[in-house]
Amino acid sequence: MNEKNTNKLKILNDPIYGFITIPNALIYDLIEHPYFQRLRRISQMGLSHLVYPGAHHTRFHHALGCMHLMQKTVRILKFKGVEISDEEANALYIAILLHDIGHGPFSHALEQSIATGIHHETISLKFMEALNEEFKGKLTLAITIFRGDYNRKFFYQLIASQLDMDRLDYLKRDSFYTGVSEGNINSERLITMLNVKNDDLVVEEKGIYSVEKFIVARRLMYWQVYLHKTGLGAEKLLEKVLLRAKELVFEGAKLPASKAFNYFLINQISEENFNSATLKIFAKLDDYDVLASIKEWISNKDLILSKLSENLINRKLPKVELQNHPFTKEEIESVKKHLKKTFNLNDDEVNYLVYSGKISNQAYDSTKSTIKLVFKNGDVKDVIEASDHLNIQALSKPVNKYYLCYPKK
Amino acid sequence: MNEKNTNKLKILNDPIYGFITIPNALIYDLIEHPYFQRLRRISQMGLSHLVYPGAHHTRFHHALGCMHLMQKTVRILKFKGVEISDEEANALYIAILLHDIGHGPFSHALEQSIATGIHHETISLKFMEALNEEFKGKLTLAITIFRGDYNRKFFYQLIASQLDMDRLDYLKRDSFYTGVSEGNINSERLITMLNVKNDDLVVEEKGIYSVEKFIVARRLMYWQVYLHKTGLGAEKLLEKVLLRAKELVFEGAKLPASKAFNYFLINQISEENFNSATLKIFAKLDDYDVLASIKEWISNKDLILSKLSENLINRKLPKVELQNHPFTKEEIESVKKHLKKTFNLNDDEVNYLVYSGKISNQAYDSTKSTIKLVFKNGDVKDVIEASDHLNIQALSKPVNKYYLCYPKK
Amino acid sequence: MNEKNTNKLKILNDPIYGFITIPNALIYDLIEHPYFQRLRRISQMGLSHLVYPGAHHTRFHHALGCMHLMQKTVRILKFKGVEISDEEANALYIAILLHDIGHGPFSHALEQSIATGIHHETISLKFMEALNEEFKGKLTLAITIFRGDYNRKFFYQLIASQLDMDRLDYLKRDSFYTGVSEGNINSERLITMLNVKNDDLVVEEKGIYSVEKFIVARRLMYWQVYLHKTGLGAEKLLEKVLLRAKELVFEGAKLPASKAFNYFLINQISEENFNSATLKIFAKLDDYDVLASIKEWISNKDLILSKLSENLINRKLPKVELQNHPFTKEEIESVKKHLKKTFNLNDDEVNYLVYSGKISNQAYDSTKSTIKLVFKNGDVKDVIEASDHLNIQALSKPVNKYYLCYPKK
Amino acid sequence: MNEKNTNKLKILNDPIYGFITIPNALIYDLIEHPYFQRLRRISQMGLSHLVYPGAHHTRFHHALGCMHLMQKTVRILKFKGVEISDEEANALYIAILLHDIGHGPFSHALEQSIATGIHHETISLKFMEALNEEFKGKLTLAITIFRGDYNRKFFYQLIASQLDMDRLDYLKRDSFYTGVSEGNINSERLITMLNVKNDDLVVEEKGIYSVEKFIVARRLMYWQVYLHKTGLGAEKLLEKVLLRAKELVFEGAKLPASKAFNYFLINQISEENFNSATLKIFAKLDDYDVLASIKEWISNKDLILSKLSENLINRKLPKVELQNHPFTKEEIESVKKHLKKTFNLNDDEVNYLVYSGKISNQAYDSTKSTIKLVFKNGDVKDVIEASDHLNIQALSKPVNKYYLCYPKK
Repeated sequence: MNEKNTNKLKILNDPIYGFITIPNALIYDLIEHPYFQRLRRISQMGLSHLVYPGAHHTRFHHALGCMHLMQKTVRILKFKGVEISDEEANALYIAILLHDIGHGPFSHALEQSIATGIHHETISLKFMEALNEEFKGKLTLAITIFRGDYNRKFFYQLIASQLDMDRLDYLKRDSFYTGVSEGNINSERLITMLNVKNDDLVVEEKGIYSVEKFIVARRLMYWQVYLHKTGLGAEKLLEKVLLRAKELVFEGAKLPASKAFNYFLINQISEENFNSATLKIFAKLDDYDVLASIKEWISNKDLILSKLSENLINRKLPKVELQNHPFTKEEIESVKKHLKKTFNLNDDEVNYLVYSGKISNQAYDSTKSTIKLVFKNGDVKDVIEASDHLNIQALSKPVNKYYLCYPKK
Repeated sequence: MNEKNTNKLKILNDPIYGFITIPNALIYDLIEHPYFQRLRRISQMGLSHLVYPGAHHTRFHHALGCMHLMQKTVRILKFKGVEISDEEANALYIAILLHDIGHGPFSHALEQSIATGIHHETISLKFMEALNEEFKGKLTLAITIFRGDYNRKFFYQLIASQLDMDRLDYLKRDSFYTGVSEGNINSERLITMLNVKNDDLVVEEKGIYSVEKFIVARRLMYWQVYLHKTGLGAEKLLEKVLLRAKELVFEGAKLPASKAFNYFLINQISEENFNSATLKIFAKLDDYDVLASIKEWISNKDLILSKLSENLINRKLPKVELQNHPFTKEEIESVKKHLKKTFNLNDDEVNYLVYSGKISNQAYDSTKSTIKLVFKNGDVKDVIEASDHLNIQALSKPVNKYYLCYPKK
Repeated sequence: MNEKNTNKLKILNDPIYGFITIPNALIYDLIEHPYFQRLRRISQMGLSHLVYPGAHHTRFHHALGCMHLMQKTVRILKFKGVEISDEEANALYIAILLHDIGHGPFSHALEQSIATGIHHETISLKFMEALNEEFKGKLTLAITIFRGDYNRKFFYQLIASQLDMDRLDYLKRDSFYTGVSEGNINSERLITMLNVKNDDLVVEEKGIYSVEKFIVARRLMYWQVYLHKTGLGAEKLLEKVLLRAKELVFEGAKLPASKAFNYFLINQISEENFNSATLKIFAKLDDYDVLASIKEWISNKDLILSKLSENLINRKLPKVELQNHPFTKEEIESVKKHLKKTFNLNDDEVNYLVYSGKISNQAYDSTKSTIKLVFKNGDVKDVIEASDHLNIQALSKPVNKYYLCYPKK
Repeated sequence: MNEKNTNKLKILNDPIYGFITIPNALIYDLIEHPYFQRLRRISQMGLSHLVYPGAHHTRFHHALGCMHLMQKTVRILKFKGVEISDEEANALYIAILLHDIGHGPFSHALEQSIATGIHHETISLKFMEALNEEFKGKLTLAITIFRGDYNRKFFYQLIASQLDMDRLDYLKRDSFYTGVSEGNINSERLITMLNVKNDDLVVEEKGIYSVEKFIVARRLMYWQVYLHKTGLGAEKLLEKVLLRAKELVFEGAKLPASKAFNYFLINQISEENFNSATLKIFAKLDDYDVLASIKEWISNKDLILSKLSENLINRKLPKVELQNHPFTKEEIESVKKHLKKTFNLNDDEVNYLVYSGKISNQAYDSTKSTIKLVFKNGDVKDVIEASDHLNIQALSKPVNKYYLCYPKK
């Protein structure tokens, strides 16, 4: 028995891929770091579990899944003769492992309410830089790739494109945990058909139907899961809770909240004032801070905050109407008027109960980081051109829908 | 322990659905009948196992699977308040169980070569009528439904439409056994969304993305599996073997073959002369007759028959070129000329080695037995109209491809 | 389209069973009740996700799964002629749905530390009674069954025995989410082999190997998952955090905690003083209270509490040694002595860092609520007698192991 | 895009493992050879599909599966530091790919009836030697390993032991295709826990419960699938058909049969007279010869042969009684007497209809090629000693059962 491999070469059980291998000690140490462990406490799909009760998987698990797929991809590309050095491979693993480390709890709701000034990708980069310092420069190449600055462009395409490891994992994973099996893509099969041509990531010709199906599965997951009416209602309700809390705090109220959460309720954070101290506080924030606080707010004396919080915790979700054209001002006002009268609310208050907006999805974007196919004769074509049909072109038109939320009964 | 249920109420293990229940003694007896048992010896996918080594499932298994899905469907429709009597339900089970009983071995190849005069659906009906006689009229309602003559039209739609139990089973099953998981449809989910409106089978509004995915999966299975180049080459090769054998027999040769197989080599069968005696002989024909004979023909003195047979058995399949427009006469002639010269063949002989043709598929046919969606307000629309996109419309255009086959090397 | 079924007849997606059907409006309302919704915030496997990153499923999901299996069981037993009225069936669904409703967050750790005076099953009953009052007596039969007081004894066996719906769901579910596929039992197959004989729940003879496998799978899940060294270390660490917190509170310290959590830190709860007011507070307690508080305790001035909390949150888990005989006093003292010296700790403090104990599992208990097999001739035998082997008898001997935990490095 | 890999580096779809990779051109050519292609026409599980309708997978597919698992194993052992050269790895792939190539159609029945003089493993070796000649010595090392003559003993253990690739594939595969999911073992997990210690194949300590479960799964598959009463009846019936045919041929009858099959009916084959000419004829024999012939025999004038053949083809299987002790002579005679009288049969004839015998299985054999565990401290123990229970020891006792077959009604 050989002892070459230390305790840091781990094999983890995974319900989706069977096993995930941690390839080396540096990556093991990154995973063990509190910044990364924190992702264990951040749900990948926010409040979607209110619709799909199995959807409790975390960003931690997704990040490991991405790294696993990247290992498969590197192995298959090397099998096909693409040269990738060990250092490059390792940088790819790190870049994809950390690509989402900047996510806060319930990112979308948070970025629409109390942390509007900074995007999670910016924070990911800040985390990587902090870790790079701690790990004495060992993440430099990973960061270069993540920024899109590496001279081999397919490296960046593996991290961020319309066929990147992120999408290959999250569609599969979210489909798995929600039980919406129509969204299940065959990530491993797509990976076996990847190749590199003229420094571009390409799919072999025979993979065209798999790519079509991948695009359709993504479209389906958006409308059926990510933008599901009930889940949308829950997320918008969370936004309103957070907005109300921030408003109350600005008016001088003191709300029960963890120290880290309180910091973001009190302060207006922007890209400019997000410094290393902010990062350390942000690193303490997760789903537990947010939900534990909202649970306490149920007994708050502000009736709006109390009612919204109670509705969220006990899953009394708003009614959501969805249609292909915007709701008219008149329609919205009529709903508000009725509520104001019934519950004796003022204008500010009713806006926490009635709200409308737009959601949209573009199954395939034909304008940037497109999916390319390579033919036996060496030709490379965008998947739209390569298809024997107009259906992918059809799918590249964005679809917009409009929602109106208001309390049930 | 209650003894109500006799030994004929069986529960079978099934790799796909877990379990298949045989609901009553009549159906048990139909399954036990030699006419139905014969389907155990007829492969569902012909020679596709030469491409996908797992694809050895039989028409027997598919028929059971269809019956299982029909039971699910009846249960869900009744749960939703659609009235279906026990007698009607039973007729539906029988109709779907027997819908493919008229398939011969390697149906498509056979119907293109030695049994060109009659279609398998006609033979299915003949089998059903023979069984109805044997079972004293108990299949009458099933036959009425199968013929499309029953007064409740959704009954026929469950048996034969673009969303019938046949498709719901075979796409799932073929995807499962080939391992082409992109073709995997969620039959059970689609079934939970079925309903009946104005006597039409409809899918509930929220199922629209699942229907889209179903259509795309079907398209994918056609091009990637059913019309796969290598599989196509094998099937065409089989056709040529059978054509050559029939030609030799007509010229007076005596080929080793089972009695039943010999009957179809010697006789020209048409719908007119296919009588009850023919049916009894047909009932003895299966994959074993055909392949065992072809194995013997390898040592036949006719070089064409011998060579074609050997190529088929030992998987020396022809080279297949595929393109979007027909091959020109010149292209085909040039290939033939080269072969004739190299191997000293005459015109008749070279036609067994070089051949071209067209394959086509229409993922969704917007003109007949279309898929309808029902909306919350009760409106019914064809899925093309209901979609928020043009992609299904795009998929309703037929796609044609053209092939040219010739020996490798 | 029939409108018989109201909006309360829901079909939920489930990653394990495909779909879970909510059979009627009463059960829908029970599920929507805050007491039941609370289970969404209680992890089924406590801290096991620190070992198996997929294990984030909740008691909410498990309860739904049990109800689903109960529906299958009722259907199969009725198919076999066992008479079960609609009222009885409904009571079974409710009893199994609510059987675990009394679980608090991290039950095992909690019951060993701050809530030592009452067992979760007692609390389940209190919840059921409270709900029964609210739902005007509609849960009476369910409660009778749950208490084991119903006159048909197999009803209770479906709720609590060595082959109850609880085990059939949790083994499958925990195996699924951990990815430890060896623990995967075929619940649906076992159910198809259930029957009732002399009012006892029995398994048909041919199921003997499946029962054996079920017992072995359970044994495997215990040692490989539930009692996994690392998971055990995490749970024991959590116990120590809670014990320290309770000790500090008793000494007069004020710790950040939600109101509900604080109540249980301050008060000594026993079966006697657990009244309806306590129940209402208990109903507000979940994983979020506990973990959010522990996160705040990281910055507490008590070094023991701070260090233990930080170790738990950042997954710096203790080293765990496991052996077949108890650790000697000398071994334990020697570890403590070393730590006391190195970190200058007193006796009280060191006990929070070094601790030992016993874990045990009995794969099959031959003394109570045993698994019975029924033979074709009507004989009923315990599975131990029925087996053609001594292996189940071997598995009925309890296995004990002894652990010693102390800080790494 | 790199062109290093020729067309012979194929990736096949596989329903079980996702993908199977053909690692090099030599192995590609071996797979393409008619000797190996022949395995496509030999069912892995003989007549088990008469009980489990999905069980139509072939020895071809199993052989590919074994090779796939061997690739996984080589990769994991190398990852753990075990040195395996490319040449050695390739020899392992070939040895396992060809380990079953000597199987004839319905091996067990055939070896009990018309080909009693030679064992399939001997024939496998003859095929390998013939191929080695054709491939100019490239199989020499593979043959050395297969014979058990290689100086690194764990090589042979990977090919033939109680935890070899053969078992790891067939248990998983047969469980998959029959749908008997309790037999599903986690081959990939077991493989990740393999290592080599003192030149012995060992399983890491933590794998002990997986090994236990593997042994129990094997036991279950034997009694529930391989030795299933109905399947046993079918296999014994097939033996009787073949015995009757051979008897008739010896008496001078001429039966319809393919040339290859006829050869084995006419001749008495033994290890001595099985020469290279015999091998070439044997290479033409597969399931199609046997079943196509039996179908023809239904109309044979010998009533015994005709009736037995018809029963087999139309699945009119004998009744099988199974018990833990032998049937007495009196019991057997009484059944025979009754039949002789009812159908006016002589002694010879009745022996084709009534027969008894013993079946047995030993889940784990503690005496040869045992499964060894390695502990963290380097100790190696047999799994029986290593277990914390006596259950594996219990499973190492052979279990015998006795059957009696006779016609239904």
